This record gives sequence, structure tokens and C-alpha cells, in this order.
Amino acid sequence: MTQKKAIILLSGGLDSVTCLAIAQSQGYQCYALSFSYGQKHSSELQAAKKIATHYKVAEHRIIDLDLGGIGGSALTDSNINVPTHETFEEIASDIPATYVPARNTVFLSIALAWAEVLQADKIFIGVNAVDYSGYPDCRPEYIQAFQMMADLATKAGIEGNGVQLETPLIDLTKVEIIQKGHSLGVDYSMTVSCYQANDKGQACGHCDSCLIRKKAFEKALNSDPTFYVD
Amino acid sequence: MTQKKAIILLSGGLDSVTCLAIAQSQGYQCYALSFSYGQKHSSELQAAKKIATHYKVAEHRIIDLDLGGIGGSALTDSNINVPTHETFEEIASDIPATYVPARNTVFLSIALAWAEVLQADKIFIGVNAVDYSGYPDCRPEYIQAFQMMADLATKAGIEGNGVQLETPLIDLTKVEIIQKGHSLGVDYSMTVSCYQANDKGQACGHCDSCLIRKKAFEKALNSDPTFYVD
Repeated sequence: MTQKKAIILLSGGLDSVTCLAIAQSQGYQCYALSFSYGQKHSSELQAAKKIATHYKVAEHRIIDLDLGGIGGSALTDSNINVPTHETFEEIASDIPATYVPARNTVFLSIALAWAEVLQADKIFIGVNAVDYSGYPDCRPEYIQAFQMMADLATKAGIEGNGVQLETPLIDLTKVEIIQKGHSLGVDYSMTVSCYQANDKGQACGHCDSCLIRKKAFEKALNSDPTFYVD
Repeated sequence: MTQKKAIILLSGGLDSVTCLAIAQSQGYQCYALSFSYGQKHSSELQAAKKIATHYKVAEHRIIDLDLGGIGGSALTDSNINVPTHETFEEIASDIPATYVPARNTVFLSIALAWAEVLQADKIFIGVNAVDYSGYPDCRPEYIQAFQMMADLATKAGIEGNGVQLETPLIDLTKVEIIQKGHSLGVDYSMTVSCYQANDKGQACGHCDSCLIRKKAFEKALNSDPTFYVD
């Protein structure tokens, strides 16, 4: 029997490496997909490369895509600052400036194209609807709607062999994600979560992503492998 | 009152220019979106540029995206020939080798991102479910599913200001599309439909797209502005 294939959307952050570890533990031959989309924190791509090599994926494809030219997000537009806070409690509850318009839809669409060519069974995406930043494209109802669309969009889909989205982290807290990854031997020091990490992959310590990560590591492991500059 | 904005997916073919003419006739400020995705018939992009200039669009964005690297289509893979036939009647009824996996999904996703930044009201796409090549992502049920997904995917969507897909050609025959465009003054000599047009934009005359176009022009206008090399 040939090994089943899975595409893993690999940003280089802690969620995506956990997804990769889960897919591999389930016996999938893993294909990693990353995007150079104009993000300020391009050191996450270095992390993604390191992770892909570490996990010996079948292939790691990095797609160049100029979402920065389209603009509209603090993650890609040099005229919009990444919001920072002193403490976790100050994180705003509405959709923040770091939201990138339609990002997961764009990423999943390209994964869908690749999945059809590879005849992959699954696309793993590390979306999370519990400890997240309020992004609409991380919610279960969005994922379900994408699946319905995908089933109609492709030759494989209408022939009944369409790829299935897998969201193993969607109902987990950040603490549970770290515990899950830890149990699978994930070395989180390889990952970059910070929205404005420097060239060395060091974290600012004050963006939403840093504050969420910091709090979760303290609670989950009582230690944090991340280097924060402040 | 500010003028409403529309994005038009502009391939440079006859359907997309007709969409642009329709959008403009409805009073929209038009933003054209094209893709350099590794297509063999890159002269369609030259046609798109010419059309965008002719119609004085507010902006013409050409996104570079390496779908050719993913492969799986006669339109992007140099190892797969574009199928050709002697006559229209020989066109196969199943999904042909020119199908590009998830192409409309990828294009619409990026249009969705841009629409949110522009606060556009509409995305016009020239899909057609009558005289088409059997592509799954040209059918009304696919478009409806994409719309449902889009409404959940974006900040604008969940706030009730999401962009709406417009498919003015979906129920028209190719003959009716040409008649519609003709009534709006479209100069179809600017367009390129051929899947393997040469650098001058001249058509092969024998791919599915040429055969469908040729027959439709003969029926609609009793003349054809296309230069076929054979």
C-alpha cells in the first residue's frame, strides 16, 4: 500500500510545526508549503526551512506571492505598525491590524492546487479558534465552507477523491497545543511566532503573538524556549 | 456619492474583456487583475495590458504566481502538450488536459484579498457554464460555494460588507457573449483566447479554445477578427 500524502501549511510558527508533528505521527508522507508573501517577519521562513529539514519532509515548497503589494495589513505594510502591548491582558478583542485580508483562503487555495497534482489526501492547517487573534479565517465555520467549496472546485473533488482539510488544533488552547507538541517531541526553539521577529528570529516580546506564546509556554511547560529581545 | 468599485479578473481573452465592458457600462470604477502563472500563452497578458489601457481602468495589477512549478496542466507544464483537433466536433466532453488545478479558486482568493483592501463591491469573473471546456470551477454551484466561503473568510464579510461575485456570462452561449460585447463596442481583435498563442498573440487554430472561439465568431458576426496561423 502506498503511503498517504498530506500537505502541511508551514509558517514556521508553533502551531504549524505541531501540525506537522501530528501528521507525521499519523503516518502521512508530508509535503510542506510556505509562503513568502511580503511578511515583515520573514525570519519565520528560515524557521520553516529548518523545521522542514528536521522533519525530513518529502518536499518543501515556498511560494512567492506579493500580498504586500495589495496591502491592508500591519504584517505586510511598512506604513502600518504591528500593535504592541505591555501585558497579555491588553490584547484587543476585535480583529487586529495584523489581520491579512483573505490570507488563509489564498494559502489554502494554493494548497488545494498542489494537493490535486500530488493526489494528496489531506491538507493540515494549524488554525485555532480558542487562543487566537480574532481572525475570521481561523473559525470552524470558515473551514467547513472552504471544504464545501473545494469539493466543487476541482476535478478530484467532483470525482469524489478531493482532498480533506485537517485542523487538529482548532479546539485546543495554546497551552494544550504546546503540551500536544511536547508529547510528540517537538523542539519549539526552532519556531518563530513574533510578528516582527528580527533577522536572527528573535522575538519582540510585545506583539499579540509574542504575548499569547509567552503566557502559554509559562503555563504549559513552566519554561519558554523563545529568545525575547525585551 | 463615491463611485462603486469592481475588480475584474482579466485574462486577456474574450470572456474577460466582455466582463470588463459590462462592469464599466454598469458604472463601476474598474480594477483589473491578471496573473502571470506560468501559462504557455503569456501573450494573453500582453492582450490584458492592452485592454486595461484601452478601458482606462483605475489600476491593473498583474500578480506573479508560480503555478507552473506545481504542474498538472497542459497550460503550464512543458511536458504536457495542449490537445488539438481538426474540427470543433472532436472536442472531448470530459475535463481536458488544459484544466489547471484550482485555478479559479486561487485567482478568486487573491481577488478577495484585494477587494477587501479596496473596499470593492464586486468581483467580475467571466466564467461560463454553457460553451465551456468542462472545467469544474466554471459552474454556478462552485461560484455559490465560493461566495458562501468568502462571506465567512474576511473581516468585511463577517461585518456584512463583503464583496459579491458577479458572473454575467455564466448562462450565455459563446455566441451570445460575443453579441453582448459587440453591442457594447468591444473590439475583440485585442483579445487572445488560444492556449498556445505565439509571441505576437496569433492563434494556433486547433486547440479547444480556438475551435470554440472560431465557431462562435462565425455564428455571431459572420466574421472573425482573430489571426489563426493554421
